[in-house]
Amino acid sequence: MLTFYNEQHSQHQGRHEFFRGQQVPCFETPARADAVLAELGRRGLGRIVTPHGVPLMSLERIHTPRYLHFLRNAWSEWVALDPANASKDAFPSVWPVRTLRSDVEPDNFCARLGLYSMDSGTPLTAGTWSAAKTGADCAVNAAHALRLGERSAFVLSRPPGHHAGADFYGGYCFLNNAALAAQHMLDDGARKVAILDLDYHHGNGTQSIFYQRDDVLFISLHADPRDEFPFYLGHADERGEGAGLGYNLNLPLPAGTTATAWLAALETACIRLGSFGADALVVSLGVDTFAGDPLSRFALHSADYLRVGERLAWLGLPTAFIFEGGYAVKELGVNVVNVLEGFETAL
Amino acid sequence: MLTFYNEQHSQHQGRHEFFRGQQVPCFETPARADAVLAELGRRGLGRIVTPHGVPLMSLERIHTPRYLHFLRNAWSEWVALDPANASKDAFPSVWPVRTLRSDVEPDNFCARLGLYSMDSGTPLTAGTWSAAKTGADCAVNAAHALRLGERSAFVLSRPPGHHAGADFYGGYCFLNNAALAAQHMLDDGARKVAILDLDYHHGNGTQSIFYQRDDVLFISLHADPRDEFPFYLGHADERGEGAGLGYNLNLPLPAGTTATAWLAALETACIRLGSFGADALVVSLGVDTFAGDPLSRFALHSADYLRVGERLAWLGLPTAFIFEGGYAVKELGVNVVNVLEGFETAL
Ligand SMILES: [Zn+2]
Ligand SMILES: [Zn+2]
Repeated sequence: MLTFYNEQHSQHQGRHEFFRGQQVPCFETPARADAVLAELGRRGLGRIVTPHGVPLMSLERIHTPRYLHFLRNAWSEWVALDPANASKDAFPSVWPVRTLRSDVEPDNFCARLGLYSMDSGTPLTAGTWSAAKTGADCAVNAAHALRLGERSAFVLSRPPGHHAGADFYGGYCFLNNAALAAQHMLDDGARKVAILDLDYHHGNGTQSIFYQRDDVLFISLHADPRDEFPFYLGHADERGEGAGLGYNLNLPLPAGTTATAWLAALETACIRLGSFGADALVVSLGVDTFAGDPLSRFALHSADYLRVGERLAWLGLPTAFIFEGGYAVKELGVNVVNVLEGFETAL
Repeated sequence: MLTFYNEQHSQHQGRHEFFRGQQVPCFETPARADAVLAELGRRGLGRIVTPHGVPLMSLERIHTPRYLHFLRNAWSEWVALDPANASKDAFPSVWPVRTLRSDVEPDNFCARLGLYSMDSGTPLTAGTWSAAKTGADCAVNAAHALRLGERSAFVLSRPPGHHAGADFYGGYCFLNNAALAAQHMLDDGARKVAILDLDYHHGNGTQSIFYQRDDVLFISLHADPRDEFPFYLGHADERGEGAGLGYNLNLPLPAGTTATAWLAALETACIRLGSFGADALVVSLGVDTFAGDPLSRFALHSADYLRVGERLAWLGLPTAFIFEGGYAVKELGVNVVNVLEGFETAL
């Protein structure tokens, strides 16, 4: 399996995030991607390549120009506010919720930071843009490789992407890599692409991007949002809208879900995938479903991830795996690469 | 002038607020109301009374039952999460912005805190509910006094109210006292009520509550929201919606606005007020338009506030003044009471 590795990922390294209004250490660290890279090397799963840079226009297929412009310049604006900001990550503190407008972009930087975000748990740092952009490059390159005939590709990148919407960041995510990969394949001639989100958390960004479309089927297995981030999306009654009605499938699962129950939900997802008739599959591969994950409450074990990969291989689709969440750093490499190896060795 | 004083106000005392992601001291402190109370006493402006408690149903005329239920129980839920929270104010860290749902109330407390708020600058504390509820009592009592024939009344209360919407808090505000006063007068037989918001910041909560109604005219003079809180509302093109079209008037003013320009805008507001034909007037009285205000960038001086009061008196309407912002504590009493004394002595 071809791996597109984001060499810039470690440029994005938050100093802290907020939990219940207090500063706590970041869970989403460079060590995460390093661990997966090391395990890939140990198992010799295939070539690791550096992506070509893609034009901003490719990103504008998913994200609004206004948001991209903001994100690209955010750090320099933040430091321009006060030189002392260079040693502090940027966090928003005000947001346009119900009745407040999103259509007028404020001049005030902090207000724009809030306009384009959904939480204060996602540090924006000096290297965020270059890391996120190179990650998006990886995703588009992987999609391109599939269109050129590769059976599968792995995007080993940070920051993750599935919580990022068309015009907001949050949940550690800035650019929606899975959405970018799916859209690139469509733009390159695929008729239908499916996105399967296996992360512990609902992929609210990806869902919202494709919610009104029937050329992208979005399916997500995740912790019930009543109790878990992103809290405000991911319910079973969200089935799509307009032309997209029926092309969104959420399978929320309760805390404590074991491999047996989780794999049964995966089976439900695979049946829907089969009937959709996709030309290609994008997998948002979070392994924070792992029993030892510090943020999560599902109970999958390392060996289960081999079975996940095997099951996906049986779908027989060109498949791009996109690295999303997973915070048990010690086991992260094994868990992620198990999915990939299960996929590779299944057929 | 009858003053309804909220004796519970000092129960609401935040430990800190957030500015650019950093903890900073609170600007909205108990000393603010104390300063105004002391100045009222010095000038002998009239009787100071304690309000009767009003039923929750009066609050439900403006705020959603779901929001009120949350607010009433928020502190005990916060402490139930972790006994150590008793010594920390509650702040949200995730919000339902664009594409995220507000219709499903999460079980997770922190998610509900975000559902019902618009910023992380508004500490929710042990005494917030009793302070806000007693403040709302003052507002409804003042409205009632006007209906019984008083010419004017002053609501001396904290926390302020004009940023609070039907179902969210923010900008130091939890219950919208001005909206509650206006609604009470309508419920008690007034046909039309006008609300004039003189605070430096746009009264986004009040505007949004009455935006589709023609029985309440809302007019606000404030700093341009492109640069100042609440950032996402308060533009000149917001004129009301549906039946409310034409019953919302925003007069945003640039940084550095002097008394001359500000009073000219007040004149514009008074002309529109005159043509509306209100039975009563509610004034959201913030004096953070003061040149020495630490949060603001207008340049009114203490003597100007006498003229403000005089001008409002000439409208000849039963008038309830509701204390909102103003953070130059030393001059706060003089500035607020100048408005009231200007009003009292004009005719
Ligand atoms: Zn996750
Ligand atoms: Zn104010």
